[in-house]
Amino acid sequence: MRKVAVIGVGNTKFGVRNDVNLTELAFEAVKPSLEDAGVDTKDIQFMALGTIGAGAWYEEPLPAVVVAEYCGLTGAGLVRCEAACASGSAAFLTAYSAVASGQMDVAMAFGIEKMREVDTLTAVELIGRGGYYLWEFHNFGLTFPGYYALHATAHMAKYGTTEEDLAKVAVKNHKYGAMNPIAHLQNKITVDDVLSSMVIASPLKLYDCCPITDGASSIILASEEKVRELKIDTPIWVAGIGYSSGTANLSRRLSYASLEAGVAAGQMAYKTAGVRPDQIDVAEVHDCFTIAEIIAYEDLGFCKPGEGPKLVREGQNEIGGKIPVNVDGGLKAKGHPIGATGCSMIYELTRQLREEAVPRERQVPMKNYIGLAHNVGGTGHYCYVTILKR
Amino acid sequence: MRKVAVIGVGNTKFGVRNDVNLTELAFEAVKPSLEDAGVDTKDIQFMALGTIGAGAWYEEPLPAVVVAEYCGLTGAGLVRCEAACASGSAAFLTAYSAVASGQMDVAMAFGIEKMREVDTLTAVELIGRGGYYLWEFHNFGLTFPGYYALHATAHMAKYGTTEEDLAKVAVKNHKYGAMNPIAHLQNKITVDDVLSSMVIASPLKLYDCCPITDGASSIILASEEKVRELKIDTPIWVAGIGYSSGTANLSRRLSYASLEAGVAAGQMAYKTAGVRPDQIDVAEVHDCFTIAEIIAYEDLGFCKPGEGPKLVREGQNEIGGKIPVNVDGGLKAKGHPIGATGCSMIYELTRQLREEAVPRERQVPMKNYIGLAHNVGGTGHYCYVTILKR
Repeated sequence: MRKVAVIGVGNTKFGVRNDVNLTELAFEAVKPSLEDAGVDTKDIQFMALGTIGAGAWYEEPLPAVVVAEYCGLTGAGLVRCEAACASGSAAFLTAYSAVASGQMDVAMAFGIEKMREVDTLTAVELIGRGGYYLWEFHNFGLTFPGYYALHATAHMAKYGTTEEDLAKVAVKNHKYGAMNPIAHLQNKITVDDVLSSMVIASPLKLYDCCPITDGASSIILASEEKVRELKIDTPIWVAGIGYSSGTANLSRRLSYASLEAGVAAGQMAYKTAGVRPDQIDVAEVHDCFTIAEIIAYEDLGFCKPGEGPKLVREGQNEIGGKIPVNVDGGLKAKGHPIGATGCSMIYELTRQLREEAVPRERQVPMKNYIGLAHNVGGTGHYCYVTILKR
Repeated sequence: MRKVAVIGVGNTKFGVRNDVNLTELAFEAVKPSLEDAGVDTKDIQFMALGTIGAGAWYEEPLPAVVVAEYCGLTGAGLVRCEAACASGSAAFLTAYSAVASGQMDVAMAFGIEKMREVDTLTAVELIGRGGYYLWEFHNFGLTFPGYYALHATAHMAKYGTTEEDLAKVAVKNHKYGAMNPIAHLQNKITVDDVLSSMVIASPLKLYDCCPITDGASSIILASEEKVRELKIDTPIWVAGIGYSSGTANLSRRLSYASLEAGVAAGQMAYKTAGVRPDQIDVAEVHDCFTIAEIIAYEDLGFCKPGEGPKLVREGQNEIGGKIPVNVDGGLKAKGHPIGATGCSMIYELTRQLREEAVPRERQVPMKNYIGLAHNVGGTGHYCYVTILKR
């Protein structure tokens, strides 16, 4: 297989970005990624753009085309990728495959979402449609907090996980978010803050849920030949990608305490990369809700099934612990602009593996120089796991 | 570059398909493609699904997930691809790249659209949004017949193309559509029928426009190793894919008498495949409107710029002529279920290259066993050109 590396990354400030339109937001990520890679717009042969809100929470129906025109990328091959909340990772796989296949030497994986042009209730409704639309959304009115409340309840019933365990995940992610200049939420919180916040879908409270965020992230990928030609200092190699899917219908899942697609995608990524879970230095996992982060620890083999809460209680998920997770704040505090999230995970891992995290207190000490990104679409309808290696 | 072949194809009846829902329609294409390839659902490691109407002209927001569940493909990697009317070709490129990269041995490119759940005017409005939405659609009210009327007028002014030339393209495509059991429109028409049909956007009349169609198409791709392992009789190899994009804003185009993205994608495909235009035995081109087919002849080098009408007048675009085009009826008569179209072009080429077109009168005599598919998104916003070789 042809070797492919991440050679440039850019990420906008995440947050409520009513100060810019869609293409201006895109430019804020594209420009620094080109500068970081030391390439020009004309070098980008292909762009895979991850987004889900086109024609829904923002109006533009062909985001890839208008972003390409505004950023000077017209002429490149273009495709928009959707895998619900894993759309950014689907775009990354698509751009990676295009380069790895030998068709081209440089491609861009790009993710963007502008979710704050509609009000919160509309956003929650639109996101809710990304489960099993015709049955669960239409007939039962399930929204995403409702779905993940089912997962939390199942995990609690099976393993004795507590509301405090969930709260501690939020506290950790807000701690790192408060240190991260691009994070949406930059306030430190306490376990009490979480427990006393408004109940959204019991047992999940406001602070168990990620915010609704605008943002974009841009990743430039290149072949090994191009990496040499460009004399890239610190290429970050794509070691392996795993992917899987789950049933639309939740009643066909074996368990709510785990996401089958997450387990399968993780195992495939480890196998392809030739890496074990205990070799991962830093991980980005899909914490749209606090329970999702705990389930991810278990699905990815960072601990045994049911031992996620123990990992939290011991603080092994922080810098200095066994497996530092979401030290950029995660979806929970950095924010979750849906289509951008997968690329933004790669952005953070790239900067961590290059040992250039900002500020320095957020830099994870590297042993093996291996990072993992875990990005879930829907409630385990899609999952992509990407392993990077310096 | 790893060799990849089309090993199985399936296509639904195109038309008004209110008799089935989205997943049932999908199954009608998936099942025959699996049987044709001689593989099982569990062999499909990845599915790239092309569609644009999700959440617009049909309600389902995660078509890849529900199609996978209904067709027994859950567990495969999934991504939905959008490149406007070239979404099916974008899905084909994505599945092709995934196999060519060495990540997997078998993948499915799948296209689907269910456009007849909304009324015609709504459909025309939704399609119109796929141009330059914020400027041209919102401010000027341009719809797709309007866009292609501009292209037709430019071509007429520059080259003396006549309304009769356009009409002859429709007559040819209806002739073949009438012979094709899966075509949406199966009525033969005359030049007079076209010229006397209702004006939609002058100079384009009703019979210059493709219909609004439901349909799905499924293509199974495999690596060379897998082709050998499965003892595939007649693999149809992917010789080269070209891709490009044009500006969103039509005022930034150099000419309306040609699509820059079509020229660039064609040249890239020929170069990658090591093939000349005069070696193509059979072509599928994007005739959403009759003028688009004439522009495609010129953009793809089947004739010189401005000589498209001559090719039509001489009948060189029919079976027995220099370059038989759209002998399945094309978008014009077979129909244009947007996301399915790119895959349906590959379906037709595969059957032509295997010399199994139905009925036999539609079989193009093969010299070089090379076919070309040309699929445009928007009005040249995206273009994909795919060359297949037996």
